[in-house]
Amino acid sequence: MAAVPIYRAPVQPAWIDYNGHLRDAYYVVVLSDAIDALMERVGIGAAYRERTRNTLYSLEMHMHWLEEVKASDTLEIEAVVLGADQKRLHIGCDVRVARHPKPVATAEFMLLHVHQGATPGAAPFPPEILAGIERLRAEADGSDWAGPRSRELALKRR
Amino acid sequence: MAAVPIYRAPVQPAWIDYNGHLRDAYYVVVLSDAIDALMERVGIGAAYRERTRNTLYSLEMHMHWLEEVKASDTLEIEAVVLGADQKRLHIGCDVRVARHPKPVATAEFMLLHVHQGATPGAAPFPPEILAGIERLRAEADGSDWAGPRSRELALKRR
Repeated sequence: MAAVPIYRAPVQPAWIDYNGHLRDAYYVVVLSDAIDALMERVGIGAAYRERTRNTLYSLEMHMHWLEEVKASDTLEIEAVVLGADQKRLHIGCDVRVARHPKPVATAEFMLLHVHQGATPGAAPFPPEILAGIERLRAEADGSDWAGPRSRELALKRR
Repeated sequence: MAAVPIYRAPVQPAWIDYNGHLRDAYYVVVLSDAIDALMERVGIGAAYRERTRNTLYSLEMHMHWLEEVKASDTLEIEAVVLGADQKRLHIGCDVRVARHPKPVATAEFMLLHVHQGATPGAAPFPPEILAGIERLRAEADGSDWAGPRSRELALKRR
């Protein structure tokens, strides 16, 4: 297991819903902030974005909610690199809280490197960002990340 | 195409991120509110929840972000029933804005009917909720819903 801690956020009272637990969508709000922290780590922080007009767009995400999270919890996000090519980055995330030994949620993100020109379009990562991704992968190798993983959702028809 | 409109929400200024568009996670915040509206439609509204202590939990979600959404847009959520069994409900959602002919995002949710007793646990839908789901399915049949659909995320390793 080589997931690395990248972000943490205490649950905010407004995020608790009528079920008395963290509303599903706010796991994603925290994960989105965690992806920002990950971008910073690989060199796609504010300075890079302003200088190059390059950024990451989220293409796709698969989320598993595994345990309820309560108002007193703090979410801790750990990430692994599941894959990367010249312009895409595939990240796995575990969402943890201190009182549970296993993740309370997992998520996979597929992210695209985009140049925000007149029309935004996919752009290859420059060498320094590829190097940043490789540094993160060395630290956070996803080759044995347990998940649960993304998949086709399906139910037998009644 | 039989998706039915279930919810709409104007984009809030705080939901726009450093990329100048709706942050990925806030599509999910609006979708989560849309699932509440859908629950109300099938009979799992506040009165039912208080009377029975039954509710829906989100198990899993797969999201595709297809187009940028701007501060001036209003999100319109349409839903279809993709499947149901005695305690689970599989829903497909299109996220639309007026200026695009096609969805700007799609999402699938797998939802579980839960009784919140001393320990929350899966519970079968009572007949009146099954009837509500069948009424929604008659109106919002997902058998030809185009998606894009949930799937295993993968990238060739560099």
